[in-house]
Amino acid sequence: MTYERVWTVRFSDADSFGIAHYPRIVDAVHETSDMFMQSIGFPYWEIVEEHGYGLPLVEMNFEFERPVEAGDEVTVELTPDLGTRSVRFEYVARSDGEVAFTGYEQRVCAPADGEGSMELPDDLRAALSEYADADGDGDGSEDD
Amino acid sequence: MTYERVWTVRFSDADSFGIAHYPRIVDAVHETSDMFMQSIGFPYWEIVEEHGYGLPLVEMNFEFERPVEAGDEVTVELTPDLGTRSVRFEYVARSDGEVAFTGYEQRVCAPADGEGSMELPDDLRAALSEYADADGDGDGSEDD
Amino acid sequence: MTYERVWTVRFSDADSFGIAHYPRIVDAVHETSDMFMQSIGFPYWEIVEEHGYGLPLVEMNFEFERPVEAGDEVTVELTPDLGTRSVRFEYVARSDGEVAFTGYEQRVCAPADGEGSMELPDDLRAALSEYADADGDGDGSEDD
Amino acid sequence: MTYERVWTVRFSDADSFGIAHYPRIVDAVHETSDMFMQSIGFPYWEIVEEHGYGLPLVEMNFEFERPVEAGDEVTVELTPDLGTRSVRFEYVARSDGEVAFTGYEQRVCAPADGEGSMELPDDLRAALSEYADADGDGDGSEDD
Repeated sequence: MTYERVWTVRFSDADSFGIAHYPRIVDAVHETSDMFMQSIGFPYWEIVEEHGYGLPLVEMNFEFERPVEAGDEVTVELTPDLGTRSVRFEYVARSDGEVAFTGYEQRVCAPADGEGSMELPDDLRAALSEYADADGDGDGSEDD
Repeated sequence: MTYERVWTVRFSDADSFGIAHYPRIVDAVHETSDMFMQSIGFPYWEIVEEHGYGLPLVEMNFEFERPVEAGDEVTVELTPDLGTRSVRFEYVARSDGEVAFTGYEQRVCAPADGEGSMELPDDLRAALSEYADADGDGDGSEDD
Repeated sequence: MTYERVWTVRFSDADSFGIAHYPRIVDAVHETSDMFMQSIGFPYWEIVEEHGYGLPLVEMNFEFERPVEAGDEVTVELTPDLGTRSVRFEYVARSDGEVAFTGYEQRVCAPADGEGSMELPDDLRAALSEYADADGDGDGSEDD
Repeated sequence: MTYERVWTVRFSDADSFGIAHYPRIVDAVHETSDMFMQSIGFPYWEIVEEHGYGLPLVEMNFEFERPVEAGDEVTVELTPDLGTRSVRFEYVARSDGEVAFTGYEQRVCAPADGEGSMELPDDLRAALSEYADADGDGDGSEDD
């Protein structure tokens, strides 16, 4: 099961050719991760206070295959790939059925009041797993 | 009839006290105007090309009564107040039933290829009127 | 004495006509207030922690007279108008010597750990006063 | 020679822990590329109209090593690595002398009115080369 949301590219996201500025695409990706975490019951604005950890970004990589334009309804899919102490959010975005951009955000599980990383707590792991792909090694590779 | 959308304040909208940065509130207001124009069939990204005019902003005024926080579901209402050559989008935003911010965007109808202003075309006027308040003098005043 | 900075409108600020999106203008205004507060020794990111109060926005009003375009060097002037418990940041922005937009941000002095407002502390008042206009009643009116 | 600018992290860039939101870092990177292109005489807002091509982004990759906080003066270095039909902008950002984030934007040279890619024009190549690293194969690899 993959998490999915539709991002409508707005006039104010677009440049002088009518196509979305890259920083606005990153905004939409980031918003998607926020919507996803909320949907599984672990919103960013609660996990630190209520659970004592965060999921800071350590890497992002995106490839842009086709521009998206103001008015486009872009379907953004998010699939978490779970590691022991990290999770990679993998994205595929399509407009009119064709891939517009793909990429990932690598996030590490970090205690709110300390240094370094920690294992993904069981309840968060369980919630993420409902949307995870079969691979599940947290590095974005395909193992088979 | 008032146009209404729900804006979820995201983690990345919020400051070090957990409350939304003002520029992010303006983004949300602007997005609301974009969603509204799309909903009535006159999206910003089409009106210039297909209809030959735009609705540039000439003034904005907002008052902030209560802060909104990451995770808040903010109901943003938009009511157009029609003038002859302009339209004022009036906003009331509520969180938990209490007013968080109010304000307006004053927009003028301007030909795409010229100077100055023009009368609101009949089809746009009709579409806006479905959501307009009873006053309809385009200046935000209450006449009665 | 007026605080002044130059804002270069970037490609990613501009719309399909090459003119700056309004939310990006608001970003630039807000950045200007941040730069100003830093320049007088009371940066936003320190005043709460070190001084125990903040200057939240209670109202903003802007009028847009001429569009600004990608590549424009926009001179943004900020003049504080001091009240007892508030300060109004008044803005005039010019491009090529002509006024592009004007407006103000009304800010109230609020204790970080409480409700309501408080008098502007003497040291902040003194720092703001170096850039203040002669009127100094904090309401943006001209008294003479 | 490397292009360098200082980005001051603003209060409105920061999250509830005082550290910059990732989308705001991407804004700063993108602004840096815009400032760089302006500094070498090929601003984004002119190249399409005056030269007939653009440099759309095809990939971005960033690694975040240390958070940056409101008030930090972040030195962002940009070094172009030139290919035949593309250029990679390589970034290293430091705060207090330590690396905060690194990454690259891969950009392709594309004709404004057509499909596919084109060779970097000589004048643009010459301007970029003044800041380019010795490698110059446009793929970010170290060859020696």
